[in-house]
Amino acid sequence: MKKEYLLSPGPTPVPTDALLSMARPIFHHRTPQYQALFKEVNEGLKYVFQTNNDVLTFASSGTGAMEASVVNFLSPQDKALVVRGGKFGERFAEICEAYGVEVIAIDVQWGNPVDPELIERSLLENKGIKAVYTTLCETSTGVLNDIEAISKIVSRYDEAILVVDAISGLGADDLRTDDWKIDVVVSGSQKGLMIPPGLAFFSVSQKGWAHVDSARCPRFYFDLKSAKKAYDNNDTPWTPAISLVIALSESLKIIKKETLANIFLRHRRLADATRRAVEALGLELFAKAPSNAVTAVQVPQGIDGKNLVKLMRDKYGVTIAGGQGELKGKTFRIAHLGYMVEFDVIVAIAALEMALKDSGYGFSPGAGLVAAQEAFVK
Amino acid sequence: MKKEYLLSPGPTPVPTDALLSMARPIFHHRTPQYQALFKEVNEGLKYVFQTNNDVLTFASSGTGAMEASVVNFLSPQDKALVVRGGKFGERFAEICEAYGVEVIAIDVQWGNPVDPELIERSLLENKGIKAVYTTLCETSTGVLNDIEAISKIVSRYDEAILVVDAISGLGADDLRTDDWKIDVVVSGSQKGLMIPPGLAFFSVSQKGWAHVDSARCPRFYFDLKSAKKAYDNNDTPWTPAISLVIALSESLKIIKKETLANIFLRHRRLADATRRAVEALGLELFAKAPSNAVTAVQVPQGIDGKNLVKLMRDKYGVTIAGGQGELKGKTFRIAHLGYMVEFDVIVAIAALEMALKDSGYGFSPGAGLVAAQEAFVK
Repeated sequence: MKKEYLLSPGPTPVPTDALLSMARPIFHHRTPQYQALFKEVNEGLKYVFQTNNDVLTFASSGTGAMEASVVNFLSPQDKALVVRGGKFGERFAEICEAYGVEVIAIDVQWGNPVDPELIERSLLENKGIKAVYTTLCETSTGVLNDIEAISKIVSRYDEAILVVDAISGLGADDLRTDDWKIDVVVSGSQKGLMIPPGLAFFSVSQKGWAHVDSARCPRFYFDLKSAKKAYDNNDTPWTPAISLVIALSESLKIIKKETLANIFLRHRRLADATRRAVEALGLELFAKAPSNAVTAVQVPQGIDGKNLVKLMRDKYGVTIAGGQGELKGKTFRIAHLGYMVEFDVIVAIAALEMALKDSGYGFSPGAGLVAAQEAFVK
Repeated sequence: MKKEYLLSPGPTPVPTDALLSMARPIFHHRTPQYQALFKEVNEGLKYVFQTNNDVLTFASSGTGAMEASVVNFLSPQDKALVVRGGKFGERFAEICEAYGVEVIAIDVQWGNPVDPELIERSLLENKGIKAVYTTLCETSTGVLNDIEAISKIVSRYDEAILVVDAISGLGADDLRTDDWKIDVVVSGSQKGLMIPPGLAFFSVSQKGWAHVDSARCPRFYFDLKSAKKAYDNNDTPWTPAISLVIALSESLKIIKKETLANIFLRHRRLADATRRAVEALGLELFAKAPSNAVTAVQVPQGIDGKNLVKLMRDKYGVTIAGGQGELKGKTFRIAHLGYMVEFDVIVAIAALEMALKDSGYGFSPGAGLVAAQEAFVK
């Protein structure tokens, strides 16, 4: 017998109530019933985003909302400052380039957070930067960027907005959209929000909205003004992914009950235990400033990283994530994100130990589990 | 007690096996398990699209695939011929305009199909038209366009591709993608494919692909080349809406079992009975050439059309669709689309009779039911 465990940084496990809600007969979206549901969901999203701004919903994966964060604020030839410290920072740059936006890149060595000073310097050296793109948790490296410090800098520049990809970080790492004055926060459904992929979210500040009118990049499906007009009637301009919105209403109930403060504490607790366990196995953490969403670990010398992840999944039923982009085979990533508790960490570490043993890596079996358990019971 | 019946032209009812499949624990999409599933789904989509072309899947609503059908084939200032005979024809024109494409419109009175001759004439009069946009079933009016005749014309022009919005028509009205040489067919998940909204589909012919390289409209999320590259590995470039793909694999099993030929016969049978019933009630059909997906009916004089639809939904639990766009309050639409059988038509007509009676419309109660029943048992 093999049981399946999903411990990847997206998709993440979906709570049973949210899963079952998707099995309910579907209903029409142009009805008071749907509008009431969507209104409730929108209030819940504001709570998670820690904002009074509108949080708009798209039927798309997170990349769609990343595209929305480019095309609605910029014009071709505009300058965008993009922090490239992993695959998702790179994606922002690719989207800008696809729309003819000039990318000024801050290339950060993968595994490191961006130094906010570099953003200040770039803004000073390159006049007319219209938007700064960075990630909260760069999922590909597990790095957490210091958004509070970055926002303190960018918010002093009237002409520049700050766009934060919080797709995997939202609900795991604290992100105070309003308090920190973040103009645009982008997220997705299949991470801390604990439902399947297919919805993307987008909060916009007043300063952000002021940029929309002058932005000349073409857009239609991801047009913010269409989205906002419908949003004001608790609706979307195009047919919403109804069953996912229903599931979201269930997961938001769970989130509100636990409270954001407790959710952040839980993620930190799980992250700490995971890291102690990994280090107790003699492995090295990859991220210099790790997010509480995911722990990226360097594959030890002589071990086949791809095979390690495959063994965990195919032999033991435990799905974690391998390295992404240039890190393929060089890192693996254990998520502690969303609908996860202490025992998910215990399972992850137990499976990791088993697969490491199979791979011929030398360590004392149970050492990781002991370290995790010590962290939990301390 | 009130039971809920969904008889709208999207979303349509979801078969129980597809609903329940979405309640299964989610699994990761970068796995052999998902790739095998997606491969099976892609084969099923080819069957429904009646094509050997690739059928690409996006996590978006149908409008996203409509946008994809513009930005991947055209450049700003290119000429597009757009049939505007309803809200969805208009949407093609709006998307073209958003991307700076020159729209040459054929404005068809709502309720009528386009005369293919007009397309021939436009292609002759306006040199350099790169694409022709039309709908199979124009959902807003219930009209079926003669795609076979239109394609015979467009396929003679090497420089022009034919794009068909088959969002609501696919799986209800015959559409022979390959036999009729249709370059691009766009569809969505919440219609004849019988699953919730959130997926969009896109088939592309060889002639279509030949246009992609020269198309300079900017795109990223809806970029066909990214989609194709991933498709060749049974994957998508961005995180797929996994639970909807799982549901689709269930509904495709049902479709293959019934066979497309029988599905078309069933839709025709349901459409015929609905129309006889409506006419037996003294009501007038709106569409001059009706699709088998939906029956649009003119609201009789002196009756409040919006209230009629509201009564059916709120008092009787039967959700049909009101008029759309300029037809608001003037028509209503009863769908016989996807997971629907004879008894759904019976329910729709019974509820319609009840709401008409409440509205003070004069007719002989049961007259619609008798006509429907006669059509079914003949």
